[in-house]
Amino acid sequence: MVSIALNSSTTAPVPVETLQRITTAAAELGYTPNRFAQALKTQRTMTIACIVPDITNPFYPALVRGVQKIAQDVRYDVITMNTDGDPAREHQFLDWAREGRVDGVIGVFFSLRATDLRVLMDVDIPVVRLESSAKHAGSIPIDDIYVDNRAAARAATEHLIARGHRHIAMVAGKGGPEAVRAQGYGQALAGIKTEPWIVLDEAFNEVGGHRAAMTLLDAPKRPTAIFAANDLMAIGVMQALRERKVAIPAEIAVIGFDDISAARLVSPSLSTVTQFQDRMGERAAEILLKRLKGDRAAPGTAEEMPFQLIEREST
Amino acid sequence: MVSIALNSSTTAPVPVETLQRITTAAAELGYTPNRFAQALKTQRTMTIACIVPDITNPFYPALVRGVQKIAQDVRYDVITMNTDGDPAREHQFLDWAREGRVDGVIGVFFSLRATDLRVLMDVDIPVVRLESSAKHAGSIPIDDIYVDNRAAARAATEHLIARGHRHIAMVAGKGGPEAVRAQGYGQALAGIKTEPWIVLDEAFNEVGGHRAAMTLLDAPKRPTAIFAANDLMAIGVMQALRERKVAIPAEIAVIGFDDISAARLVSPSLSTVTQFQDRMGERAAEILLKRLKGDRAAPGTAEEMPFQLIEREST
Repeated sequence: MVSIALNSSTTAPVPVETLQRITTAAAELGYTPNRFAQALKTQRTMTIACIVPDITNPFYPALVRGVQKIAQDVRYDVITMNTDGDPAREHQFLDWAREGRVDGVIGVFFSLRATDLRVLMDVDIPVVRLESSAKHAGSIPIDDIYVDNRAAARAATEHLIARGHRHIAMVAGKGGPEAVRAQGYGQALAGIKTEPWIVLDEAFNEVGGHRAAMTLLDAPKRPTAIFAANDLMAIGVMQALRERKVAIPAEIAVIGFDDISAARLVSPSLSTVTQFQDRMGERAAEILLKRLKGDRAAPGTAEEMPFQLIEREST
Repeated sequence: MVSIALNSSTTAPVPVETLQRITTAAAELGYTPNRFAQALKTQRTMTIACIVPDITNPFYPALVRGVQKIAQDVRYDVITMNTDGDPAREHQFLDWAREGRVDGVIGVFFSLRATDLRVLMDVDIPVVRLESSAKHAGSIPIDDIYVDNRAAARAATEHLIARGHRHIAMVAGKGGPEAVRAQGYGQALAGIKTEPWIVLDEAFNEVGGHRAAMTLLDAPKRPTAIFAANDLMAIGVMQALRERKVAIPAEIAVIGFDDISAARLVSPSLSTVTQFQDRMGERAAEILLKRLKGDRAAPGTAEEMPFQLIEREST
């Protein structure tokens, strides 16, 4: 197979006769460009990449589905890549994407910063970031949408305080949005002049939640309520409490974060904070499509999305 | 930008002098091929696509994670595409993939047959299918791995029979692996000379399970046990029973299929059949990598994977 792809919008001046020689050579080969070569030429792949830190956390597939709902109406394909929130894998994605395989990116990045993502702008691939607080991309034309995770975590903790709890622990993973959520938890506790008590675990999922809860249960004085930094951790906490025959919420109340579908299904059902992830995915796709059709170099935007406390049986 | 990509393994003979003219023209442009053009040339993208019918069914992200575990060791990127099991979207994927964007495909296809997938072999993209029963790709070099879903569904139903149930209904979605699972259910009932009672719903998830259960609860004579064609449907069934204050398993026992992580977390915990989806993903990746390194044209293989009945509180 011989492929030739030309794009007249070259940055370096190309001698007209050289272009003509290539075109002539191609014609002699009887060559018709295929769509892959076409993509190289036009820089259009009609594909959007969703970059997520944990494809097995149901929060992210729900988000992807929101993206897909909007993208498919305008015939964009959506592909998903899982980074495990690992810095090396996030950089690997950059190398992958800058080769022009996708037209645009919607991503949740734990390590990459706006300055890292700049290389994608350089090859004309716009990026929409999903963030846990307002970010400023500065002069870089990156669009952000975010839920104020600090305020949401504060609301979750204040819900426990309103239920009469004063001895409230938090379990969290490392990296990602946990830092901001821990700040909100700390702010709520400051309101009742109480010190934070945070147990960190490597795993931002059921396994980590289970382990962190065991640490709390073995403490000299147990908490009366636990705020878990996401629903998977909260469900792991609930498993640990069940194993230790601790009644939820009578002895220890539990609240999570995200409102994944399992939150409704566990027993007792899990109180949590929803970020409306399907709507978040839809909105991210709308913003990306607008950027794809419009001014690629216009200043980045930041749009806040709502959260909502969901009170269920576990608190 | 000007890109030239040559692959010497062309099917049509190309005049040497023409190739030389292209090469010379490229050299005059001071052109160094980028990796995207390189991919076009070498046909290697170092990317594997996973095609799944429902990214929000936790069964599939677990499978993808298994694929990724094996692929990353040999520096392959893994991307996931969601088809919703929709025939049009599965065909759209074919159009997308045949442009050479990936080196290989691991897929769960509801509509595409081996003859449809042939177009990928034609552009040297091998395919591993995950199937619900032994398939014969014939002369087409497609590798299959499968769990005998008929036997697994029979085992689930026979478990209910062993628990003393004689009035056992099944709820299922339309399309995909349900037909084979319904056969296994029917075989088990034939063993006790009982007629099948299957309620179908469009949605192969909680919503569909909930709706189907309501139909069963409103029947003149209720079943004493329900076999749901997947865990999401089973969890929807359990939600409906809880709303109607029907005790599980005392009044109606429930068993699912897949062993998604939520199956352990609901209350009562859900009996089900596991297909070891993480191992299934790993094995699919191993087979695909072997094909990528080896003989692309060798006859297709079919490998059976195990299932296991998981008895929990709901039966």
